[in-house]
Amino acid sequence: MSRVFNFSAGPSALPEAVLLQAQREMLDWNGSGMSVMEMSHRGKEFMGIAAEFKANLIALMQIPANYKVLFLQGGATGQFSFIPQNILGAKTKACYVNTGAWSTKAIKAAKSYCDVEIAATSEASNFTEIPAVDTWKLDSEAAYLHYTSNETIHGVEFQEIPDTQGIPLVADMSSNILSRAIDVSKYGIIYAGTQKNMGPSGVTVVIVREDLLGAVDPKLPEVFNYAKQANSDSMLNTPASYNWYLVGLVMQWLQDQGGVAAIEQRNIAQANRLYAAIDASSLYSNPVNIAHRSRMNIPFVLNDASLDKEFLANANKTGLIGLKGHRAVGGMRASIYNAMTDAGVDALIEFMATFEKNH
Amino acid sequence: MSRVFNFSAGPSALPEAVLLQAQREMLDWNGSGMSVMEMSHRGKEFMGIAAEFKANLIALMQIPANYKVLFLQGGATGQFSFIPQNILGAKTKACYVNTGAWSTKAIKAAKSYCDVEIAATSEASNFTEIPAVDTWKLDSEAAYLHYTSNETIHGVEFQEIPDTQGIPLVADMSSNILSRAIDVSKYGIIYAGTQKNMGPSGVTVVIVREDLLGAVDPKLPEVFNYAKQANSDSMLNTPASYNWYLVGLVMQWLQDQGGVAAIEQRNIAQANRLYAAIDASSLYSNPVNIAHRSRMNIPFVLNDASLDKEFLANANKTGLIGLKGHRAVGGMRASIYNAMTDAGVDALIEFMATFEKNH
Repeated sequence: MSRVFNFSAGPSALPEAVLLQAQREMLDWNGSGMSVMEMSHRGKEFMGIAAEFKANLIALMQIPANYKVLFLQGGATGQFSFIPQNILGAKTKACYVNTGAWSTKAIKAAKSYCDVEIAATSEASNFTEIPAVDTWKLDSEAAYLHYTSNETIHGVEFQEIPDTQGIPLVADMSSNILSRAIDVSKYGIIYAGTQKNMGPSGVTVVIVREDLLGAVDPKLPEVFNYAKQANSDSMLNTPASYNWYLVGLVMQWLQDQGGVAAIEQRNIAQANRLYAAIDASSLYSNPVNIAHRSRMNIPFVLNDASLDKEFLANANKTGLIGLKGHRAVGGMRASIYNAMTDAGVDALIEFMATFEKNH
Repeated sequence: MSRVFNFSAGPSALPEAVLLQAQREMLDWNGSGMSVMEMSHRGKEFMGIAAEFKANLIALMQIPANYKVLFLQGGATGQFSFIPQNILGAKTKACYVNTGAWSTKAIKAAKSYCDVEIAATSEASNFTEIPAVDTWKLDSEAAYLHYTSNETIHGVEFQEIPDTQGIPLVADMSSNILSRAIDVSKYGIIYAGTQKNMGPSGVTVVIVREDLLGAVDPKLPEVFNYAKQANSDSMLNTPASYNWYLVGLVMQWLQDQGGVAAIEQRNIAQANRLYAAIDASSLYSNPVNIAHRSRMNIPFVLNDASLDKEFLANANKTGLIGLKGHRAVGGMRASIYNAMTDAGVDALIEFMATFEKNH
């Protein structure tokens, strides 16, 4: 079989150039006589790979010098717990904005560590919009404000960075990191699992402003202590070394594409084409407020749900994979992360049009 | 360069057959049109890979039906914290046996969660032996007794499973899991990072007896809650899916070798040859009590430490990599895990003999 177009929400499609390079280097990286996954993480070969990976991420996101960049494990879901354990300090409250399934999970986890104040929620509209920032209830005594910059399941995305009036801003960027230019200096913490825009699963990137590091919860395990991992360059214990290498290859690929600004333009164009096709059809629809639609995850429903099965089966046969929507919202979802090609989006649009014509 | 003989302590050498299969399947697993790392972890292809991996591990270790087998993240070091958080329940004490650097780390971490009672320690002999089990101080009120079945740095290994008189036995088996047949039913918990005998880093195997699952520390993050992960087949959140696949390939390879009993015989033979060469020489020596020597990690020193640099440089030139000892003990260390070939051990012994003759 030839390669499919993979619209999975994560793990998700990777650039073919990255897979080809990993394939070439599988038994012998750069004349070392070893696969990267066989290398001691303390050896000079892997230390070089790790340093280049980190430097490339810093360059791509223009991360200021007063931020620490950590590569941890446990996924964004692990960080839901480790963030309060790392940065609450003497404070007892944190603000959370609820814009969908992933915010909801972050809120649930945080309640084991602090008083959670809901600054805003779009639950009443079934998470099809983002509450206007000027209506948020901010508490100046909160240790931080947490939000989810892109909701993978509900397909809503912040188009601007919210102003929290000095409260440290913490963002789960798992599903839109590196897909658009952002000003890192506006954030206290940015975190993201790698399995959407950055590579395979197994690494969690945490970018944390130095002044937030300090007194931690005594029950925080050492390997998730941001300050200690920062001092050890994320090698307090054995890292997921092969995953670091693969994510590093994706960073190189992104630079080859022209960096974040260039990929953002491609992402905008792809999302616009797909939304336009949905909006122009009478079979498909997307419920999200147009101003808050995600460029990365595009859920849509068929106006006759009895056609869902046939739609998915035909799509699979055509080599369009991973289009089934999350059970929380039903219907379909096309995830079009950085690695999605124009050809993939065009093939989906063409398939959808043909399917509509035939029904 | 051709492939080297890699004696690194972990991450470490992998079977060439595994790397070749991963290379072949990199862009297209089994006609799916996807790399395994691109697959949705909820899709039927990856669910099949995961089920086969787990079934193979259960078969290889003959894990009884009343145990849960979990594939987590964070390394053994993470589990140093998550074990007390998962199983202390209402108890406030745990016993630890200190046989080297890794036990010492486990003890330090546990002190954040409970009163640690040292049942036995070989610190006085610089961790060159294992305290006789009949001298251990056991406390029947302890929630569990923790030991390290093989000390990667100090090169001491338990040759028998200690009898703890009913106290649940917890073992860090990171560096000798699957290298020898063991009776899993003697254990409460077995855990191990994968980067030594099982594959690349990035997965932590936890095998836990069901009756130990119960009341957890309220500050335990959900993704490290053994009971919850058991109910979700270790997919409470996105797993390190490609790592699971690679470890699964190593499990298949181990079955092809004849399973644990067969690899144990090869491991015994390899270790015996290397220890015999060390003991017969007047240049090299190993300080560990002969009855407690590790089959996996063989530290040795040169009687003239000024030769260390030349030894390592010449070894590297000969394609023998990763022989530098840990800074805690100095000298050299040859890690000869399951994937080490007879040819690799023979090449090392020959190199050592030639080096001795020339000095």
